[in-house]
Amino acid sequence: MTYLPPAEKIKIVLVETSHPGNIGAAARAMKTMGLNRLSLVNPREYPSAEATSRASGADDVLMNAEVHESLDAAIADCQLVMGTSARLRTLKWPQLDPRETAGRVYEEAGSGSGSVAIVFGRERTGLTNEELALCHYLVNVPTNPEYSSLNVASAVQILCYEIMMRAQDGQPRAAEELGEQPVEQIEMQRLYGHFEEALIELDFLDPDNPKHLMRRIRRLFNRVRMTQNEVNILRGILTSAQRCCRQQRP
Amino acid sequence: MTYLPPAEKIKIVLVETSHPGNIGAAARAMKTMGLNRLSLVNPREYPSAEATSRASGADDVLMNAEVHESLDAAIADCQLVMGTSARLRTLKWPQLDPRETAGRVYEEAGSGSGSVAIVFGRERTGLTNEELALCHYLVNVPTNPEYSSLNVASAVQILCYEIMMRAQDGQPRAAEELGEQPVEQIEMQRLYGHFEEALIELDFLDPDNPKHLMRRIRRLFNRVRMTQNEVNILRGILTSAQRCCRQQRP
Repeated sequence: MTYLPPAEKIKIVLVETSHPGNIGAAARAMKTMGLNRLSLVNPREYPSAEATSRASGADDVLMNAEVHESLDAAIADCQLVMGTSARLRTLKWPQLDPRETAGRVYEEAGSGSGSVAIVFGRERTGLTNEELALCHYLVNVPTNPEYSSLNVASAVQILCYEIMMRAQDGQPRAAEELGEQPVEQIEMQRLYGHFEEALIELDFLDPDNPKHLMRRIRRLFNRVRMTQNEVNILRGILTSAQRCCRQQRP
Repeated sequence: MTYLPPAEKIKIVLVETSHPGNIGAAARAMKTMGLNRLSLVNPREYPSAEATSRASGADDVLMNAEVHESLDAAIADCQLVMGTSARLRTLKWPQLDPRETAGRVYEEAGSGSGSVAIVFGRERTGLTNEELALCHYLVNVPTNPEYSSLNVASAVQILCYEIMMRAQDGQPRAAEELGEQPVEQIEMQRLYGHFEEALIELDFLDPDNPKHLMRRIRRLFNRVRMTQNEVNILRGILTSAQRCCRQQRP
């Protein structure tokens, strides 16, 4: 069973794309992953035979694309805007990788009323600082530091793929889970603190050298993006175990 | 800090690619994600100006590609072979998604002596059954059932991206962890059985309606691909907690 993302709420925005082939390839990338809302800001050439050819069977996505004169106009109906950027290290902005981005996009598209946009910049120069300032989060695809020249349609493919993967993950969604977000890092720190305390009480952790085991526990749970409910479950289990231990040794 | 995958052990194999542009785009996709070993089985046109143009700055990957007359020859030095296929449902074969594939590829490349190959088939017809029979696992990228026409270079991009993400995840690798593989599903079933048993003893689970909480626990741990060591740690914690409970109620 394949689950599709909530396509009607997710918009892919391409800003001043130079090569029409990239627009076509982006449309194809979107459609393979179940998305269809394409928005073009000042494309150099659109419509274009080359774009249609590269879109392959996704020419409907291409034909139905909105065209805008500014990024502002393209994201006017969006409640959350994610801007892709290769130049993250120098900017002070909340930064997400594609997987985290897909999580946010998926959750937000499933809960709010507005749309969610992922914005991709020009082939050579990306998004301007003014355009990035319109974004709530910056998205950084990890790349080879010696060759970070990711094609724009490939970047679209990766983000759309992650959204598709997120849709598989989260389905079937119980109604109660709608809007559940991964916890902030501070909650994870509290969870690890609670683990350490409980494992010492359980005599499972050597209090003089707790680091090795705690490192492994962190490594395990850092691989998942836990929700508050999940953190609560684990902390509840730890509390129950501690209660047993305390009753045992009065 | 960006960590690169073990590129010298990972090979991308393209079988009978028709469009040289796709070969170039695949080379670029690889290099952005830190990979460089490209192997071509009977490419229709190679070398090619169009491939070089689409490769952009990854023309070194393209120029250094091996060319073989059969898939057999291309994977002769490989200890693990993953074959991509869109036609999974009808085949009885171990099937992985791109993330699981990247996990296996990364672990295997970090431990064994041979190389690991990911094989991509022809644009229209994919890999033949004879070619798939040479693969240890089939890889399926989840796609829109109504439009699953993923471009071959885009599929390469997704797989290489997942390997790059896995490299970020797993770094820095402690020496002791080299060769650690995700556990088989049977180990996860044992873990969940142990959880259920321990949570009942801890009075944390309603024995008459344990399903809701257990579903959430499964959902949490199914999102990580746990190693044996991690399963052992969790089961050790559960055993310690059970020991406390049992001493408390003689």
